[in-house]
Amino acid sequence: MKRGFYIGRFQPYHNGHQSVLEHIAGTVDEIIIGVGSAQLSHQADNPFTAGERVLMITRSLESLDCPFYVIPIEDIQRNALWVAHVRSMTPPFDICYSSNPLVVRLFSEAGIDVQLPAMYEREILSGTEIRKRMLENRSWKNLVPPAVIQVLKEIDGPGRLRQIAGDD
Amino acid sequence: MKRGFYIGRFQPYHNGHQSVLEHIAGTVDEIIIGVGSAQLSHQADNPFTAGERVLMITRSLESLDCPFYVIPIEDIQRNALWVAHVRSMTPPFDICYSSNPLVVRLFSEAGIDVQLPAMYEREILSGTEIRKRMLENRSWKNLVPPAVIQVLKEIDGPGRLRQIAGDD
Amino acid sequence: MKRGFYIGRFQPYHNGHQSVLEHIAGTVDEIIIGVGSAQLSHQADNPFTAGERVLMITRSLESLDCPFYVIPIEDIQRNALWVAHVRSMTPPFDICYSSNPLVVRLFSEAGIDVQLPAMYEREILSGTEIRKRMLENRSWKNLVPPAVIQVLKEIDGPGRLRQIAGDD
Amino acid sequence: MKRGFYIGRFQPYHNGHQSVLEHIAGTVDEIIIGVGSAQLSHQADNPFTAGERVLMITRSLESLDCPFYVIPIEDIQRNALWVAHVRSMTPPFDICYSSNPLVVRLFSEAGIDVQLPAMYEREILSGTEIRKRMLENRSWKNLVPPAVIQVLKEIDGPGRLRQIAGDD
Amino acid sequence: MKRGFYIGRFQPYHNGHQSVLEHIAGTVDEIIIGVGSAQLSHQADNPFTAGERVLMITRSLESLDCPFYVIPIEDIQRNALWVAHVRSMTPPFDICYSSNPLVVRLFSEAGIDVQLPAMYEREILSGTEIRKRMLENRSWKNLVPPAVIQVLKEIDGPGRLRQIAGDD
Amino acid sequence: MKRGFYIGRFQPYHNGHQSVLEHIAGTVDEIIIGVGSAQLSHQADNPFTAGERVLMITRSLESLDCPFYVIPIEDIQRNALWVAHVRSMTPPFDICYSSNPLVVRLFSEAGIDVQLPAMYEREILSGTEIRKRMLENRSWKNLVPPAVIQVLKEIDGPGRLRQIAGDD
Repeated sequence: MKRGFYIGRFQPYHNGHQSVLEHIAGTVDEIIIGVGSAQLSHQADNPFTAGERVLMITRSLESLDCPFYVIPIEDIQRNALWVAHVRSMTPPFDICYSSNPLVVRLFSEAGIDVQLPAMYEREILSGTEIRKRMLENRSWKNLVPPAVIQVLKEIDGPGRLRQIAGDD
Repeated sequence: MKRGFYIGRFQPYHNGHQSVLEHIAGTVDEIIIGVGSAQLSHQADNPFTAGERVLMITRSLESLDCPFYVIPIEDIQRNALWVAHVRSMTPPFDICYSSNPLVVRLFSEAGIDVQLPAMYEREILSGTEIRKRMLENRSWKNLVPPAVIQVLKEIDGPGRLRQIAGDD
Repeated sequence: MKRGFYIGRFQPYHNGHQSVLEHIAGTVDEIIIGVGSAQLSHQADNPFTAGERVLMITRSLESLDCPFYVIPIEDIQRNALWVAHVRSMTPPFDICYSSNPLVVRLFSEAGIDVQLPAMYEREILSGTEIRKRMLENRSWKNLVPPAVIQVLKEIDGPGRLRQIAGDD
Repeated sequence: MKRGFYIGRFQPYHNGHQSVLEHIAGTVDEIIIGVGSAQLSHQADNPFTAGERVLMITRSLESLDCPFYVIPIEDIQRNALWVAHVRSMTPPFDICYSSNPLVVRLFSEAGIDVQLPAMYEREILSGTEIRKRMLENRSWKNLVPPAVIQVLKEIDGPGRLRQIAGDD
Repeated sequence: MKRGFYIGRFQPYHNGHQSVLEHIAGTVDEIIIGVGSAQLSHQADNPFTAGERVLMITRSLESLDCPFYVIPIEDIQRNALWVAHVRSMTPPFDICYSSNPLVVRLFSEAGIDVQLPAMYEREILSGTEIRKRMLENRSWKNLVPPAVIQVLKEIDGPGRLRQIAGDD
Repeated sequence: MKRGFYIGRFQPYHNGHQSVLEHIAGTVDEIIIGVGSAQLSHQADNPFTAGERVLMITRSLESLDCPFYVIPIEDIQRNALWVAHVRSMTPPFDICYSSNPLVVRLFSEAGIDVQLPAMYEREILSGTEIRKRMLENRSWKNLVPPAVIQVLKEIDGPGRLRQIAGDD
């Protein structure tokens, strides 16, 4: 049994995440997806709750051919404790997939194997870009899985983002 | 789509939980299982990490005929905020199943429908009883699903419990 | 201008508190009432929210002949910092009225004048006794000001207490 | 009985706040004034303690023809829990007055009625502008109620601001 | 260079601790002494601040023939993170000396070598016993190093303990 | 007995700190060195753990002719409580040496004597400058005591800094 760990903030979950996870699915027996900064929501950079992000991810991966866990991970503001925090909240794993330099460093110092995930078009497949498009009423639906469009519609996601990002 | 929420500490997950969840599975479209006091572990009353409990639950429900989410829920020590906390960490739900008086009260005051789960033998199907049996080296394996026996063996669960519950 | 500070948990506010405050009113220009453990509610020992307690106190003191402030004070779990915490949340004060040994010690070590408040019948005029009577459906209304009876009725106070103090 | 809620940081309390509250006083039976970011002080953007702000507000509203509560509200860094947090610290209220987009959104999602407060000259009647003027030793006293001038003098408010905003 | 770690609450530091540390001094190059529950003070079980405990320890070990560090360690209420927390606050160490079952378990699970410290008369050489004697005005000075007697006198240690342990 | 307090983040400890402490050593009987923001590490501005910084400081001061304490001080995000926090973690002190305006203000408001430390070349003897040089692979070893070079080599300090400061 080989388990892989993948973390992101998923604000929102998009086709880049989906493509990475589909690739990881071919290399491990089970995937653990950590939903980072789980305690944040209703911010311009973090508009969606952990629960809403869990829903986006789970729906989008319904036909993934690999069992997976979706686990909210609250920030602890203590980098030196973060790996222990993640491990306490998740089933044991053997490998971490990340291209974030801090995540790579922290797992490496803890003696855990880290691999760079497969590449994708990171300029437009990014949460920052998608939130920007939502704010400016430009097209973003082609950048996320259909299930995410559905969830965002149910929770009035773009409406919430536009309202909280507004000026006082 | 009707979603039900069920919360416990699952220290450990046992046949009583399993039987309640199998019953709930027949009444809703999806189940959300909250793993309470997620931040606690390595205590006589809370020996197992959230991740270990997620593993016990997921394995035991592999053949459940209802989609489910397993979500660690850290304590917040603020009863008046607890329902909002739970809802921020989970997909939206319509009904909560609980027999805990505080949980019932908090969800009721928040205007959420609460139902008592089906009954089972609560004297012996309880985490307290199972931990007591582990400590005293008495039989406990008949009280939990086979997958829990396997997980506890892999993490040396009874050994950990006996060591941390020992006297200084 | 001489300001006095008085702190309690007020679970609930009762005639003993009222009589102490009426006495203090005659000795200072303004009173600051700290509502301690403000973050707690829905517990057998702390059933009411800070806001509900603010309401009980303010209503009961409507005809007090001395200006007063009612300030929720959250616990900080750091005794050595507690006086600084209280002072940051309140207007400046010259004297503290308390018979609690820890409060007396902490204010004394900080160089603040402490006085014992006037005495009253502490056996029956106590939050513990009143909550016990509520739980046992015995008479308690004669122990609190009329405004408190009214507030507790509006929030279903005794009902909440009985439910959360119930067994699982 | 209709209660209205109004929140600000009041760094410091100024004529704009005063004029909004005088207007609200004509439309509700009681006003609850939440002192936001209560835990912050001694910062360039948040120079005054919650207690100092409570004092400024209470003094300035001494002749207001409407009962009011002044309640410090500490930040909780969890937007999804903030409304529950506010409600636990305050008497029950029916309506929230705010022009802050996040506050409006959070109360709206919680099903609470929100109204825009009456307008005033927001360019110069702002805490930012007043703190800037204090730092630059320009006139600011005409922008705040007389009671605020008095409180700031007693606590050496402008002096504190200038010192902590200085360079190392 | 071999460094050993030893942790206690030191409420107060006593001859048992002293004798253990003198023994450890003969087996390592440097000692790290963790002052546990550093955030607690002014409680019947934890009367002294971390700083006061640092002072007791440092003074008592002035003539120890081994370099040592005295490091306050605040609790984090997360057993699964505690070892990472300790390690982030201390210089690197190779071995932990402890007879506390939880400490032994946590360090063992983290792959760190743990040894039982040398034995001493644990019935009377215990913080619990010494605090009890202070409360009952019985002799305790023979149970602690002379430097501790001096520190406790300077801070009115027994007086503080008796006052905070008093009844309301 | 006169004790002086000196605080810094020491990211890393450098010759400027060393020269200030050598000067203070001539004016007090004992020095307390507070390691600020102790909880932070693995950040571009705070790369080193508290324990690593304790090690740098202690090693560099081995031949200082004045007893000293090195105490990690975690942030508390409450300026009004910070002095009480520091004092609870340290032996009692009579004077604080600091040129940080906020530190000066907070200690002054608490009635504690503050002195400006001796000057040194602050443009290049600064943590910011040293971290910048490490990132750019420019010479920095001449700005820190030899013991710091040794510690940073053992923990791969510059390597960690370069990795975590990298772009995703």
